[in-house]
Amino acid sequence: MNVMVILTERDLRKVISLDLEAVGCVEDAFRALATKAVSMPPILRLDIPEHRGEVDVKTAYVPGLDGFAIKISPGFFDNPKIGLPSTNGMMVLLSSRTGLVRALLLDNGYLTDVRTAAAGAVAARHLSRKGSKVAAIFGAGMQAKLQLEALKLVRPITQARIWARDHAKAIAAAAELSSKLAMDVSAVADPQRAVGGADVIVTTTPAQEPIIRSEWLEPGQHLTAMGSDAEHKNEIDPAAIAGADLYVADSLMQTRRLGELHHAIAAGAVSANTEFSELGQIVAGRAKGRTGDALITIADLTGTGIQDTAIATLAFSRATAARVGTTFES
Amino acid sequence: MNVMVILTERDLRKVISLDLEAVGCVEDAFRALATKAVSMPPILRLDIPEHRGEVDVKTAYVPGLDGFAIKISPGFFDNPKIGLPSTNGMMVLLSSRTGLVRALLLDNGYLTDVRTAAAGAVAARHLSRKGSKVAAIFGAGMQAKLQLEALKLVRPITQARIWARDHAKAIAAAAELSSKLAMDVSAVADPQRAVGGADVIVTTTPAQEPIIRSEWLEPGQHLTAMGSDAEHKNEIDPAAIAGADLYVADSLMQTRRLGELHHAIAAGAVSANTEFSELGQIVAGRAKGRTGDALITIADLTGTGIQDTAIATLAFSRATAARVGTTFES
Repeated sequence: MNVMVILTERDLRKVISLDLEAVGCVEDAFRALATKAVSMPPILRLDIPEHRGEVDVKTAYVPGLDGFAIKISPGFFDNPKIGLPSTNGMMVLLSSRTGLVRALLLDNGYLTDVRTAAAGAVAARHLSRKGSKVAAIFGAGMQAKLQLEALKLVRPITQARIWARDHAKAIAAAAELSSKLAMDVSAVADPQRAVGGADVIVTTTPAQEPIIRSEWLEPGQHLTAMGSDAEHKNEIDPAAIAGADLYVADSLMQTRRLGELHHAIAAGAVSANTEFSELGQIVAGRAKGRTGDALITIADLTGTGIQDTAIATLAFSRATAARVGTTFES
Repeated sequence: MNVMVILTERDLRKVISLDLEAVGCVEDAFRALATKAVSMPPILRLDIPEHRGEVDVKTAYVPGLDGFAIKISPGFFDNPKIGLPSTNGMMVLLSSRTGLVRALLLDNGYLTDVRTAAAGAVAARHLSRKGSKVAAIFGAGMQAKLQLEALKLVRPITQARIWARDHAKAIAAAAELSSKLAMDVSAVADPQRAVGGADVIVTTTPAQEPIIRSEWLEPGQHLTAMGSDAEHKNEIDPAAIAGADLYVADSLMQTRRLGELHHAIAAGAVSANTEFSELGQIVAGRAKGRTGDALITIADLTGTGIQDTAIATLAFSRATAARVGTTFES
């Protein structure tokens, strides 16, 4: 018999939100990736083309953490036709010492939303200019909104522009964020105008062709691209990757295969074996982050198993302390 | 909100056992692997060397089945020191159409035991001589015992020999099986003597060096090797793989990397790109199985995601019909 805790999305929303501790736990995980004997195998990917479905399974063991998460992330793109969200999923938290299941985190993707936004905050903290005030967010979905909140946690953002392919959605997101964050957020129809004068740009779209042109980028800007988590997704002009003063991957193994870097390599703009820094190396002080106010920096985030292990561990520990969840034996 | 069913090991033991329907559902899955657009990605493997732990995640989508399983199988080899089993695990059953979680199968490895034994029955049904009476089982653990039961489902086995590295365990297993199966089961200390005169041989050990020599095998024998599910495991002499009249893989992609074939290739006994039949092709009639009573046949079973999807689907359907399990919303 093994005793585990089941945490529903409602339970998890009680104990986890996008705050500085969530950002800190994800930052610690990136540091560990650069400094400890982390095990992070390649993502397992299952495709179900006849139902436009795909499932990613991610995991990572971080030495020093009691548990490790195995995350199941399905994306079924016909779901909205029958009133269901495209993406959902859950995590299983196992003991690092015995492999026994400690918790089932039935989060419907909520923890992924939080840890993905937290990684955006970590990238901005280490790569954007300290005084960054103006944000440009590409996309109008859940992650677009969370990324703006994440930036506000680490930079003195006072103004934001939202661009989305569907301008009506950008308008709605801008209205929602203006009110929620009590700041100046406006929808911008021209993507180039959204970029111009921004200090930090974050792309969160499922684009399959670049939406940001290299020549739009201005000295001093930091760009985080987080929409590309699969081979066919591409938000950033390959020339921008090649031309940036500093390109940083969350996991170079992943961005060479899945991220913006993958497209820059495929386009011949960057050679396949070029070495780049990883975010964790910068967090750990083992590689240089932003070294001047005029540099253009790009963070390419594909989403890593260490983030899942970090947020699941935090959620389990807070839920245990708050006595949230349902105990189950099997 | 998503509604799922949680099935504990106790629930699952009520609805699933090693019977001909379980064998049939695994056989159907192998047939599908050869004839349908099955998606079965490579196994995800996480290693935690500091705690002698490893986790395999397997999955497969079989067209025509409503659901697909994602199986998490941890093995932590220091667990027995603290009174816990080395292996445990669970499966998540998702809808093939929406990706929503349908069931959490908290089986502690029970369904894996059953589907692994069922694959042994499928191999024996298609590769051993029809009148096979004498079985030799290598290993004295749970899977050794289940393999003998599996053989009895498909062949008129009347006598069995058990060999194990620890002879005392072989004696105990033989006594248990004699009584449970009401047949002649004896422990044999000499592995060569266990093989001599057997019709079907099944190896279920975690051996890292061959325990069966090629020259021991006799015309007409069928050998199923199922202990090797990881690179370092090896039960069968490479010369036996090279010399068999028919070598059959559960998944050639897997046995080239993990199975007995992997060691035969590494030893130079078989060339890496040699084409062999898969069990599903034989089940489907697309490749020849045993074609004569004097052939030596070998099945190399590493364990596949299609078996997990098959047994999880059967378990869910029987549990639903029997109204077993706990409904949970998240």
